[in-house]
Amino acid sequence: MPSPTSPLPESPVPSDAKLLPFVEAGLRDLSALVALESVSAQRRMLPQTAQAVTDLLSAEGFTVRQYPGQVAPLLIAEAGEGPSTLLIYNHYDVQPETPLELWDSPPFVLTERDGRLYGRGASDDKGEFASRLAAVRAIKARHAGHLPLKIRWLIEGEEEIGSPSLARFVEQHASELSADGCWWEFGSINSEGRPMVSLGLKGVVCLELRCRVADSDLHSSLGAVVDNPLWRLAAAVASLRDSTGRASIAGFHDAIRAPSEADLQAIRELPDARGPLRDTYNITRFLGDDTEHQTRSNLTPAINVNGFHGGYEGEGSKTVLPAAGFVKLDIRLVPDQDPDEIVKLLRTHLDTLGFEDIELIELESSEHAARTSADNPFVKVALQAAREAHGKEPVVSPSSAASGPLYPFVKHLNVPTVIMGIGNIGGRVHAPNENILKRDFAAGVRFGVVFMERLAQAKPS
Amino acid sequence: MPSPTSPLPESPVPSDAKLLPFVEAGLRDLSALVALESVSAQRRMLPQTAQAVTDLLSAEGFTVRQYPGQVAPLLIAEAGEGPSTLLIYNHYDVQPETPLELWDSPPFVLTERDGRLYGRGASDDKGEFASRLAAVRAIKARHAGHLPLKIRWLIEGEEEIGSPSLARFVEQHASELSADGCWWEFGSINSEGRPMVSLGLKGVVCLELRCRVADSDLHSSLGAVVDNPLWRLAAAVASLRDSTGRASIAGFHDAIRAPSEADLQAIRELPDARGPLRDTYNITRFLGDDTEHQTRSNLTPAINVNGFHGGYEGEGSKTVLPAAGFVKLDIRLVPDQDPDEIVKLLRTHLDTLGFEDIELIELESSEHAARTSADNPFVKVALQAAREAHGKEPVVSPSSAASGPLYPFVKHLNVPTVIMGIGNIGGRVHAPNENILKRDFAAGVRFGVVFMERLAQAKPS
Repeated sequence: MPSPTSPLPESPVPSDAKLLPFVEAGLRDLSALVALESVSAQRRMLPQTAQAVTDLLSAEGFTVRQYPGQVAPLLIAEAGEGPSTLLIYNHYDVQPETPLELWDSPPFVLTERDGRLYGRGASDDKGEFASRLAAVRAIKARHAGHLPLKIRWLIEGEEEIGSPSLARFVEQHASELSADGCWWEFGSINSEGRPMVSLGLKGVVCLELRCRVADSDLHSSLGAVVDNPLWRLAAAVASLRDSTGRASIAGFHDAIRAPSEADLQAIRELPDARGPLRDTYNITRFLGDDTEHQTRSNLTPAINVNGFHGGYEGEGSKTVLPAAGFVKLDIRLVPDQDPDEIVKLLRTHLDTLGFEDIELIELESSEHAARTSADNPFVKVALQAAREAHGKEPVVSPSSAASGPLYPFVKHLNVPTVIMGIGNIGGRVHAPNENILKRDFAAGVRFGVVFMERLAQAKPS
Repeated sequence: MPSPTSPLPESPVPSDAKLLPFVEAGLRDLSALVALESVSAQRRMLPQTAQAVTDLLSAEGFTVRQYPGQVAPLLIAEAGEGPSTLLIYNHYDVQPETPLELWDSPPFVLTERDGRLYGRGASDDKGEFASRLAAVRAIKARHAGHLPLKIRWLIEGEEEIGSPSLARFVEQHASELSADGCWWEFGSINSEGRPMVSLGLKGVVCLELRCRVADSDLHSSLGAVVDNPLWRLAAAVASLRDSTGRASIAGFHDAIRAPSEADLQAIRELPDARGPLRDTYNITRFLGDDTEHQTRSNLTPAINVNGFHGGYEGEGSKTVLPAAGFVKLDIRLVPDQDPDEIVKLLRTHLDTLGFEDIELIELESSEHAARTSADNPFVKVALQAAREAHGKEPVVSPSSAASGPLYPFVKHLNVPTVIMGIGNIGGRVHAPNENILKRDFAAGVRFGVVFMERLAQAKPS
């Protein structure tokens, strides 16, 4: 039922002409935010960026409270009144910009080329935040300056380092964050303009392996008599999975919840994702075959090597036996794998294979996987709004291949969550030349308006 | 029989006082040579350094001819007249100085601390060259300005990149290089002051493995569906050897010549080398046990990882699936392993394991192993001179663990070769803080004088 305080405009879908000034203002906000080098892994410009976000929200009438996090402030902003309460989750921190030489324009200068906007955070997650803020401005303009639903906006600055403060924070601030549903920080639109909606996230553990055999580098002729730390790390890394990508760690798969028939059916209906990936990134080696792609992406854990470094890296050769080396890993988890248990299994695995000397360091707060059911009423409102705003049928996945701190929302707030946003398959998130399509930013603002209008009409039920 | 043109001084061993001015002049030469950044892998300052060496030799009456090499000039210098002809082989190029942050003083400034002289090339090989040149000056002073033996001095600038020009050069210039014996470019003195003499060198092949799976780095959540180039390289590297260091490449050991009984006996007589190595470098992981050490060092081939690089290397974590990575390897060979055959076996090994996508690049000219027999008369003269000069019994190894372009000398010149020099176990050759002991430099000059005096007395027979 429409709420009496929020009369429905003729159509919930605003025209492009009416939306244009809000889109343009949103892109100006995005440009200003991208300029702030808020790399959480390196503790760069985090308080300044928190303040910039606070200022943007305050200017739109939000009450904003900043709370200290382990590394960066967390913000809770609140505004509006209506039949529904929407929790929005975003983050203002970004991934490191290295390797710098592979960027075609400066990473912290939002730069337009051929309909795309390039910059670190253009997509993940400053573009998402800016498009949603633009939608708030647009819906207020349609309602004489009033926001016809309650929005609770949780924005953190530690997402790219595993959200070490968030789980406890959500638990402690549960009453301030309770809502009818949560709109997650990312998502994407495919090349046909169909919104890609995920209803879950994988968990993640980030680790470093270190090996050292001497105080200093040695002449490589000693390789006949001294063990090589890079060989040891290579053997350890090789032992973690087989050539199909399946983990070889004893007990690794034991806690995995069997997928529901609904999950399996949803996966069968998903369109080909491998072809577009291949075309965009010229990927030459996939794991498994085409038919497995969506199962792997949605339902399968994965062990990935983020970096491997040690010894000589210059031109030509240097016949050295390096004193030490290190490897960075991330392990993506599915329900109900427990991150702490996985680390223990990995330690046991290394010890069993004789790699007791390899140091295992957990780098950041790990995350459990979590999912929302497709038949939740809030999910249905979001999908209907997506149909209206985009004019296309959404593509719905049981789980994204990516991770995020969804588990505390499910555990402490019990809030259904939709993962929808403005990313694109060529968006190079976490990599050089991160970008969004300018048209997706506008589509994201339009979706935000329709989604909020539908929530302003009635509480999902 | 003493030659009538070279009357024997009272003792062939000069006093410390008489030697001192020659040692001091030699250290000044060394300081000037270390200042020249002749890194052959990076093509730095090679012609300048060749000219500096030419000038030093010309000043002592050597006729010096420079010949173009693939990367750096080769020099043949000749001077003196007497019953014997001594071929000396040295090189004026050095290894890269990275990692720079681990040096305690600038790598290209010869710096004295606690009786040691630090600098890139202080030992390998500018220190060796400078000590021998100082010996030439000293013996000339003892013989009224005449050099009482013929010295042919071959000095190249491509040794640290595998001497790509040398084998052909030695073949083409065989008549200019023929000699009664060859004094090789390096060697060492142990902590008891005993000269460490080797009579052979291992061969070597330097390789790079490269793997790429995409045009650009990817978000690591794609690790569920896209293969990881660092995992592939790790699995390939792990497959090359077992945890004892033994190569796992099919056919790798087939061509290895069985050691002679004399070699095995020599090895049984060698003193403990593992203890001093452990103490100097705090080595925590040796291959094999103490009893195997000398066999491994002298007679066993080895596969060593020089470097492994790809993906994120900063602080914390970056959840990226790197597009590509590379590994640098060196493989030390023993007689009669053929470097080209080893590369073919490795390619077949990779293909057999499904690593057809891993590119295999031979980085520099490879080298065959070679050895000289301990009962050669030239070897006996060298060992006797070492006994006299050092006052200690030399430690004689059938082969060094290190490599060098000895094979063309054996093949084209058929010249017996002794590997003797002024290095020390803590010399950190090829690594940060490369150094020599100042007392070893002086001992090297003294040995050079006695060795040349003995050769001036009679042709070895």
